[in-house]
Amino acid sequence: MEVFQLVTPALLVDVGALDHNLATMAAALPGSRLRPHVKAHKSTALARRQAEAGHPGFTCATPREVRGMVEAGLGDDLLLANEVVDLELLSHLGTLARSGARITVAVDSEETIAAAAEARIPEVLIDVNVGLPRCGCAPEAAGRLAETARRRGLAVRGVMGYEGHAVGLEDRGTRTETVEASMELLSAAHREVGGEVVSAGGTGSYDINTVATEIQAGSYVLMDTAYAKLALPFRNALSILATVVSVSAGGWAVADAGLKALGMDHGNPSIEGMEVWYCSDEHVCFAPPAGSEEPLPRVGDRISILPAHIDPTVAYHEKMHLVSGDTVLETWPVDLRGW
Amino acid sequence: MEVFQLVTPALLVDVGALDHNLATMAAALPGSRLRPHVKAHKSTALARRQAEAGHPGFTCATPREVRGMVEAGLGDDLLLANEVVDLELLSHLGTLARSGARITVAVDSEETIAAAAEARIPEVLIDVNVGLPRCGCAPEAAGRLAETARRRGLAVRGVMGYEGHAVGLEDRGTRTETVEASMELLSAAHREVGGEVVSAGGTGSYDINTVATEIQAGSYVLMDTAYAKLALPFRNALSILATVVSVSAGGWAVADAGLKALGMDHGNPSIEGMEVWYCSDEHVCFAPPAGSEEPLPRVGDRISILPAHIDPTVAYHEKMHLVSGDTVLETWPVDLRGW
Repeated sequence: MEVFQLVTPALLVDVGALDHNLATMAAALPGSRLRPHVKAHKSTALARRQAEAGHPGFTCATPREVRGMVEAGLGDDLLLANEVVDLELLSHLGTLARSGARITVAVDSEETIAAAAEARIPEVLIDVNVGLPRCGCAPEAAGRLAETARRRGLAVRGVMGYEGHAVGLEDRGTRTETVEASMELLSAAHREVGGEVVSAGGTGSYDINTVATEIQAGSYVLMDTAYAKLALPFRNALSILATVVSVSAGGWAVADAGLKALGMDHGNPSIEGMEVWYCSDEHVCFAPPAGSEEPLPRVGDRISILPAHIDPTVAYHEKMHLVSGDTVLETWPVDLRGW
Repeated sequence: MEVFQLVTPALLVDVGALDHNLATMAAALPGSRLRPHVKAHKSTALARRQAEAGHPGFTCATPREVRGMVEAGLGDDLLLANEVVDLELLSHLGTLARSGARITVAVDSEETIAAAAEARIPEVLIDVNVGLPRCGCAPEAAGRLAETARRRGLAVRGVMGYEGHAVGLEDRGTRTETVEASMELLSAAHREVGGEVVSAGGTGSYDINTVATEIQAGSYVLMDTAYAKLALPFRNALSILATVVSVSAGGWAVADAGLKALGMDHGNPSIEGMEVWYCSDEHVCFAPPAGSEEPLPRVGDRISILPAHIDPTVAYHEKMHLVSGDTVLETWPVDLRGW
């Protein structure tokens, strides 16, 4: 199939950039040093490429991601790096673990430990707050929670702590300092908790965080314009193919990718050579910037849009297309959506 | 089924508020005076309620919405209020039109007219730009395009022109003036184009726009916090049920509805009595505002989240649940997603 035959808006993954990103990361963090986060792409087909690049374990954000990975035969070592108290969902994961998958769940409270124990989850990590105001227990509470978990029959593999307030800092020096301060907290907690795993990090700290035994990076494989500002060695592999549906004599154009095709929390997407004015439900409106000699496109032209934040962008789409130039090599379902 | 049994995050539709909104709008704009926009809810089950409230025709934003409505037996009079140049998608709509559905497509250029004619779309509206920098021809070009369309064998039913720059203005006086200025442009174009239809408007102008023969309102039926600022007689019917998964001794809580459950272009969602700090992929972080005596919730508590913008919020979900108090009355697939 040729790219021009695709219905737009369509998620495109450039095979050259993808392969570059897979190889670059596998060289920097080989094997289990990387635990790729599937939330960034929500595709078991893409996860399989990461497994083929040598990474046996994966990070998940939702029970559905864990279930989908097990169903796809990628359940060798799955970490649900999130707190869950829904007993039905957790019990299902407990059942999958007893059927041969390895499933570890993050806990950060008496309540999440009780839920994991009741659901017969075999293994947990103690999730430690290392500075991002989100989940994770206080570092000084980690040892006590690990004891509680072990008393409830859970195997405690170690700790996790996501330095999410650090990974996006554009200045590398500041980023490094913030990561180091976070990892001091996590190391202190780890000394109390024990276990072999220290799980942390993201694309923005993959080569900075030397404390973690495994890095939970996800964005590196597809990238987005927010992470592109950090001068990392990864390339933008994901774009949205859109069709120009209207061009105004007033000097702007409209293409058919809007708020339902693009995660908007990091702001507008980008179009090379153009200034993006705004998005509405099914439209992106754009024009050449003032003083530019770039011509407006014509109705029917295909354009490429770079999303500002891949994770919530991908979650809007049913499928993504692996492309090489004008050729569609494969079409992958985005099969880990939902909860 | 009881609400507490639902997996979170879950879209809830309050039946009392929904019925109020349906009845209030049907009283103000009975029958074909309203052409409800399905893009706001993307659910044929909810569209059926709107049909039962007396509205025979619907507005759609995508070919998939049109196809889904026809498949659901709701194809009496569908307007695709958007420009499409994809011949395969348009030809499918042409086929549906020859099989008994009534399908009208917006056109605003020579190219979109040529595509509609080639795809054997029977009827079109001339889409006129009335001030929102998006689709629509210049008002003075409308008559010429109508001639072109008729020459190509298309029946021209009239004009449409969406005053999207007006519908969200909080001051009713300014909103009224802006709507009136837009409708002067649309009326002028209509005089050149002819036909019985003048299609325009939205929830924010449903009782202001007296020029349009039909109003394309969608948000009124579910509402969101952005439209709630306009003091309209419609009630918030849509909420997201979430579960608190982590509570910090630092004074904040985290629930399991984040960027993949919420359209973010209008900013953060709201939680009654709480200040929302930020959302990440699967989390919303919040705390009582400074000086408040509101207690933090506990891990496992269910909370209600009001989205800032319903359209891109609904598009993330596979289903919505019609609820009355603690009881789930019906579960509706969000079956018009995608393209």
